[in-house]
Amino acid sequence: MAQQISDRRDMDFVLHEQLNVGELSKKEKYAEFNKKTVDLVINEARNLAVKEILPTRQEGDEKGCVFEKGKVTTPEIFKRPFELLKEGEWVAMTEDPDWGGQGMPRSVSMAAAEYFNGANYAFMMYAGLTHGAGRLVETFGTDRQKNLFLKNMYTGKWTGTMLLTEPVAGSDVGRLETKAIPQGDGTYKIEGQKIFISSGEHDLAENIVHPVLARIEGAPAGTKGISLFLVPKYRVSEDGSLDQFNDVNCVGIEEKMGIHGNATCTLSLGDKGECVGELLGEENKGMRAMFLMMNEARLLVGMQGFACSTASYINSVNYAKERIQGRHLTKMLENDAPAVAIIQHPDVRRMLMTMKSYVEGMRSLLYYVGWCEDMADVVDSEEEKEKYKGLVDLLIPIAKGYVTDRAYDVCNLGMQVYGGYGYTKEYPQEQLVRDCRITMIYEGTNGIQAMDLMGRKLGMKKGKLVMDLMGEITATINTAKGLEKVQPHAETLEQALNKLGEAAMHLGKSAMSEKILDAFAYAYPFMDVCGDVCMAWMLLWRASIAEKALEKAKKKDVAFYEGQIKSAQFFCNTVLPTTLGKIQAILATDGAAVEIDEASFNG
Amino acid sequence: MAQQISDRRDMDFVLHEQLNVGELSKKEKYAEFNKKTVDLVINEARNLAVKEILPTRQEGDEKGCVFEKGKVTTPEIFKRPFELLKEGEWVAMTEDPDWGGQGMPRSVSMAAAEYFNGANYAFMMYAGLTHGAGRLVETFGTDRQKNLFLKNMYTGKWTGTMLLTEPVAGSDVGRLETKAIPQGDGTYKIEGQKIFISSGEHDLAENIVHPVLARIEGAPAGTKGISLFLVPKYRVSEDGSLDQFNDVNCVGIEEKMGIHGNATCTLSLGDKGECVGELLGEENKGMRAMFLMMNEARLLVGMQGFACSTASYINSVNYAKERIQGRHLTKMLENDAPAVAIIQHPDVRRMLMTMKSYVEGMRSLLYYVGWCEDMADVVDSEEEKEKYKGLVDLLIPIAKGYVTDRAYDVCNLGMQVYGGYGYTKEYPQEQLVRDCRITMIYEGTNGIQAMDLMGRKLGMKKGKLVMDLMGEITATINTAKGLEKVQPHAETLEQALNKLGEAAMHLGKSAMSEKILDAFAYAYPFMDVCGDVCMAWMLLWRASIAEKALEKAKKKDVAFYEGQIKSAQFFCNTVLPTTLGKIQAILATDGAAVEIDEASFNG
Repeated sequence: MAQQISDRRDMDFVLHEQLNVGELSKKEKYAEFNKKTVDLVINEARNLAVKEILPTRQEGDEKGCVFEKGKVTTPEIFKRPFELLKEGEWVAMTEDPDWGGQGMPRSVSMAAAEYFNGANYAFMMYAGLTHGAGRLVETFGTDRQKNLFLKNMYTGKWTGTMLLTEPVAGSDVGRLETKAIPQGDGTYKIEGQKIFISSGEHDLAENIVHPVLARIEGAPAGTKGISLFLVPKYRVSEDGSLDQFNDVNCVGIEEKMGIHGNATCTLSLGDKGECVGELLGEENKGMRAMFLMMNEARLLVGMQGFACSTASYINSVNYAKERIQGRHLTKMLENDAPAVAIIQHPDVRRMLMTMKSYVEGMRSLLYYVGWCEDMADVVDSEEEKEKYKGLVDLLIPIAKGYVTDRAYDVCNLGMQVYGGYGYTKEYPQEQLVRDCRITMIYEGTNGIQAMDLMGRKLGMKKGKLVMDLMGEITATINTAKGLEKVQPHAETLEQALNKLGEAAMHLGKSAMSEKILDAFAYAYPFMDVCGDVCMAWMLLWRASIAEKALEKAKKKDVAFYEGQIKSAQFFCNTVLPTTLGKIQAILATDGAAVEIDEASFNG
Repeated sequence: MAQQISDRRDMDFVLHEQLNVGELSKKEKYAEFNKKTVDLVINEARNLAVKEILPTRQEGDEKGCVFEKGKVTTPEIFKRPFELLKEGEWVAMTEDPDWGGQGMPRSVSMAAAEYFNGANYAFMMYAGLTHGAGRLVETFGTDRQKNLFLKNMYTGKWTGTMLLTEPVAGSDVGRLETKAIPQGDGTYKIEGQKIFISSGEHDLAENIVHPVLARIEGAPAGTKGISLFLVPKYRVSEDGSLDQFNDVNCVGIEEKMGIHGNATCTLSLGDKGECVGELLGEENKGMRAMFLMMNEARLLVGMQGFACSTASYINSVNYAKERIQGRHLTKMLENDAPAVAIIQHPDVRRMLMTMKSYVEGMRSLLYYVGWCEDMADVVDSEEEKEKYKGLVDLLIPIAKGYVTDRAYDVCNLGMQVYGGYGYTKEYPQEQLVRDCRITMIYEGTNGIQAMDLMGRKLGMKKGKLVMDLMGEITATINTAKGLEKVQPHAETLEQALNKLGEAAMHLGKSAMSEKILDAFAYAYPFMDVCGDVCMAWMLLWRASIAEKALEKAKKKDVAFYEGQIKSAQFFCNTVLPTTLGKIQAILATDGAAVEIDEASFNG
C-alpha cells in the first residue's frame, strides 16, 4: 500500500544513515534512545498521525473554528486525537521527563513532528504552541511557577500560547502598548490588546496559559522596556486548582486563507481591570527571553511548512503513478498508442524530481538542525558546544525562511501535478497550499529571517558561524570528491560555495558602508542562495552515503540509493547554475529598488 | 485618491506611447477608434469596473455559487453588474458590430479587460466564455446558426461555455467518449459527461449555448474523429424563441480553492436521451476549430492571471505607503526613532520593485500580443500579416504559461507585503492568490503551454517565428544602444538573447534526437527563460521611450518615466543574471529526471 504523509524510508535514511542518531544513546542524556527505541517511537508517531490525525485534516479545514460570545469551538473531530496526543505524551517530546516530557533527542522528534504536522498542522498548533510556552516557563520560571504550570502544560492538560503582536506592533515588537501595572503583591494588572494569537482561545483544554509581552508602567520605550508575564485564562490557586476567570477576553477570530482548524484570536486583556499576571523572568528582560525561544519557534514553523510539502509530494508521487493520461512522448504520432501513467511524461518527472530533491534536502536540513541542538547538549568540550550552537543560530533563518519558501513552491507543484483536480477540494493538494502559505509570514516574515541572517548571524563572533558552516560543507565536498559518481557534483557545489563566500564578504562589507540600504535589498536573495547551497550540501552528503551503500545494498534498497544520487545530480546540474546567476546579481548589488522615487510606484 | 485595480498612467503609456494604438484608426477597420475614443472607452471600462464590479469580488468569493436540484444560483450581487455589462456592450468588445460587438482593436480591449478582470474575474468569466463560444459560432457557424445564436450571445442575452474535458480526457482530449448519434434530420443526439465546465449552469441568462466536442458514431478514434456541436440548454425554435429543456443536466459543481463566484460544473448530456445538438463546422474537424480558438482563450487566461497580479500590486503600493511599521534601517539603533511607512524598508522595496517590473513587462506583453492581432488584420502585405500572426502564435504560450506563473508570484508577493494581514480575508490579497492559481492550470496547464512552445511553435515554418521575434527584440536593443541611460541594459539583454538563441537551437536539435525525453524535460525551463527575455525586452522598450520622453517631460510625468528606466535597470541587473544561469542548465540538459527509476520516487 502506498505511504501517506511522508516517506518512512527516507526519514530512516536521514536519522540512521546520515545523522546516526542512535549514537546519541551513548550519552547519558539520551541513553534510552537507541536505534530500536527510535524506530518504535516513530512507528507510534506514524500510526497516530495516519490513523487519527490525518482524517481530521479536511474536516478541520471545512468546519474551521467557530467564534460565538467570546468562546471558540474547535472542530469536534479534533477532540479525540487531542486526547490521544496527551495520552501518548507527544506534547513535550524533547523535554525533561520530570516535568512530563519524553526526553527524546530533537533530531528524533523532528521525524515524529513531520508525521504529525504533515497530517494536520492546524490541529497540531494547539500542542506545538503549548510546548513553546512551556519552554518559557521551564527556562525562566521560578520553582513555584514550574510546579503550578509546567506539568499541566507539558502533559497537554492545559495549553499555551504566545502573546506578542499588537495592531501597531507586528514586525516591530518594540512599539507594543500593553501595560503591566504593579499591584504591590508581586502581581501585575495587565491591560492591552493582542492580535493574531494562534490557539488563543479554544475548547480543547480546561485552562490556557498565555505568556504575554507587556511594558511595566514607567519602563523605557522600545524593546528595552518589555517584560514577560504569565497570564492564565483562569487564575490558578496555590494548590493548583482553577480559580476565577482572569479577564482574558477573546473578541474575535480571523477569517483566513488556511489553517482554519486553528483559532487565530484577538485577545483583549483586562477589559474589567481584572486581568492579573505574574512576571516570568526578570523585569525588562522580556525580549531576551523571546529571543532565546525564537530558534525553537522558527524551527517549528519551518517544520510546519516542510510537512505540508512532504505530504504534497507523497500525494503527487502516488497520483502520478496511478493517473492515466496522454500517450508517451515517443508515441505521440500513434493515434492508438495506449495512454500511460503521467509519471512517464518528462514534464511531470521534472516536477516530481524538483519536489523530491527539495523535500529530501529540506528534511535533512531540518533534522540536522535538531541534531546540532542534540550535539550541543551532549558534547564534552565547550568549543564543540559553541560550534553546534553557532550552526543552529546560523541555520535557523534558513530553516524557517528558505524552507517555507521552497515548501510553498513544492506544494504548488503538488497541485500542478494533479491538473484541474488539484484546484478542487476533492483532493488535499489545494489545502496544503493554503495551509503552507502562512508559514512564510508568521513567526517573523521571511523578509525578517533574511534580515536576521545577513544583519545578525553573518557577523556574529566575527564570522565564525559562517566559517564553521563552510567547514562542514567543505568536509562533505571532500568526502564526495573521492567517490566516482558524486565527484562531479562535489565540484559544482564547491564552485557555488566559493561564490557564496564571496557574496557573503561583499554584502558584509556593503552593509557596513554607505551602501547599507542596497546591501539589505539583497538580504533576501542572499538567504535564497544560502538555502540553495545548503540543499546541495545535504543532497551531496546523502548521495555520498548512497554511493557507498550501493556496494552492498539489498535489492529492495537499490532504487532508493540510486534515487539519492539522482537527486544530487538533478539539483547540482539544474538548480545550482541558477544559484550562480543569483549570486552574480548579488555581487552586482544594483541599486534600483533603493534609488527609485516613491512616486514612481503609482498607486 | 489612490487608484484601484490598476495603474491608468501605465496603461495609457502602453497604449499610446509604446504601441500607438491611435494609429490603428488610420485603417478602415478601426477608423472609429482614434486616441480620444480609446480614452473614453477605457474611462467607461474603469468606471464600470471600479464602481460596479469590484464591490462584488469579496462577496462573490464568500457566497460563491450554490447548487441545488440541478440549478446553480450565482451570488445575488452579480445580477446588476451583469446587466450593466450587457448594456455597455462589453461582452464582445472586439467583435463585428453587425452581430452585437463593439468592433474595437484587441489592443484596446486588453486595457478594458484588465480593469474588468482585475475587479472580479470569476464574475467576468460568464461574459468571457460567452465571447469565446460566440467566436466559434461566428467562425464556423452557418448563416442560420449565426442568426439564431450569435447576436443573443454577443449581447450577453444568452451566455456560452466550452465543453471539452471529460473524466478520462483532460490534457488528452483525443480520448473523449461523448457520443453524437445522427438523427437523419441533420441533428444529433448527444450523450456523455463533461467536467470542469466553467459557467456551465447559472441564473444570469435565459439560455446557455454549449459548444460540445463529441465523437460521431463510427468516427475514428483519437483527435481525428472529434466534431464540434452546438448544444443549447433550451432548444431554440426557428423563430428564435426558446423551446423545451434540452436534457443538459448539471449534476454538481466543484468546491474549489478560488473563483468561487464562477460555477465549475459537471454536465451530463442526454440522461433521458433528449439532448439534441447540431454540427458546428465540418464533421471530424472539431479539433481544428478548437485550435483556432485556442489563442484567444489562452490570451484571456493570461489576462485573468495578470489582472489578479496588477490588482495585487496596486493594493500593495497603496498599503506600503500607508502602513507604518519599524524604524528606518539607518536608525535601527535609535530607540526613539520614528516608525516609518514600510515602503521605506529595502526588503519591501525589493518586493515592490519585483512586482512593478513584472507587472509592467506582462502588461506590455499582453497588450502587444493584442496589437499584433490588430496588425495582422489591418496590414496590407501578406508577408507582414504572416509575421504578425506568427508572433501571436509564438507568444501565446508565453502570454498564458509564463505570465500566469509570474502573476501568481506577484500575487504572493502582494500578500507578503501585507504581512499577517495579507493572510486574512480582511484584505483582498489572499483571494487574489487563490483566484489567480487556477490560471496556471486551466486552458492547457502551463506544462502543456511549454510543450506547445517547444514542440510546436519553435519549429513552425522552419523557425521563422522565432527569427521574427528575435528580429523585433534586436530592433529594440539597437534603439536602446543609442540612448545613454538604457544602453548598458541593452547590452545585458543582447547577451541573454544570444544565449537564448543557443538554447533554442540546442533544444530543437535534441528534441529531434534520441535525447527527445531529456529535451522535453527542459521545455518548461525553456518557456521560463523565453518569458524572462520577453519581460526584459518590453522593459527595455519602455525605458527607451521614457528616456526620450524625459527630455521634455512635464513635471508630473518625471517620476513615472524615471520609474520606467528603474524597472529595466532592476530587471536586467537582478533577474537576467539568473536567467543566464537557467540557460546554462538548459544547455547542460541533465538527464536525471528522465533516467531516474520510477521506484526511486517513494510513495
